[in-house]
Amino acid sequence: MTLKAIGIVRNGIKQPPKQGWGEVVSEIVVNSSLAQALDGLEEFSHIIVLYWMHQVTAGGQLPTKVHPMGKQELPPVGLFATRSPNRPNPVGKATVRLLERQGNILRVVGLDAIDGTPVIDIKPYLPGYDSVANAKVPLWITNQ
Amino acid sequence: MTLKAIGIVRNGIKQPPKQGWGEVVSEIVVNSSLAQALDGLEEFSHIIVLYWMHQVTAGGQLPTKVHPMGKQELPPVGLFATRSPNRPNPVGKATVRLLERQGNILRVVGLDAIDGTPVIDIKPYLPGYDSVANAKVPLWITNQ
Repeated sequence: MTLKAIGIVRNGIKQPPKQGWGEVVSEIVVNSSLAQALDGLEEFSHIIVLYWMHQVTAGGQLPTKVHPMGKQELPPVGLFATRSPNRPNPVGKATVRLLERQGNILRVVGLDAIDGTPVIDIKPYLPGYDSVANAKVPLWITNQ
Repeated sequence: MTLKAIGIVRNGIKQPPKQGWGEVVSEIVVNSSLAQALDGLEEFSHIIVLYWMHQVTAGGQLPTKVHPMGKQELPPVGLFATRSPNRPNPVGKATVRLLERQGNILRVVGLDAIDGTPVIDIKPYLPGYDSVANAKVPLWITNQ
């Protein structure tokens, strides 16, 4: 199972910003050979971006348990119960607002990926399929 | 960028069912070495599953435009404006209800993946991060 980059993130950001990614505007520069494959995407207000977290390095054995959000005061939980980037397949998934599409370039808000991140897929966000009403989460999420 | 399977889908289903996947119960059998990495996931009602659509074969050149949902009466749109499985990286993303976790096995409802599909990541569904209020979609979605 081999992935190929379909594009790259451009936002000039080299480190995750302390204030979060909420307001960060990024460009997704899609390979120009795939520009036409974006036709119609501009009719969606939001898109799902799958990307390869290329700068995540486990530095040896991957932990099976981690402190949620790196907070030492929280009891460790299983890696798959968190969104830690440090996972067996470092694939990130973000739902972001699409501001504009020009040819092979998408301008988006809130993509939590640093400059140079390879993009592996772009999907339209479908409310009925991608969202859940009244989903239950543990207290360490609701209390954060 | 190479993916490794962290588990496999088991549901006995060899072809996408005509009535859809909504009620299909599947087991995700996670590699037993990763069982502990699931600890705490049972506190979430819904999870995101990334999987490799291993039986999708483009049969040559991948189309850049497709008829949405295979409906010939709908004008073709760009591949990335659809959820067609036939994409440069055949990675599927499903948000599913978690019924139960027992050791390395997750029982879920609504996973649209056939028996034997390799699973590449499991993430908790976080309403504030993964869902969008009032997302806009084109008419060919709302009219379906």
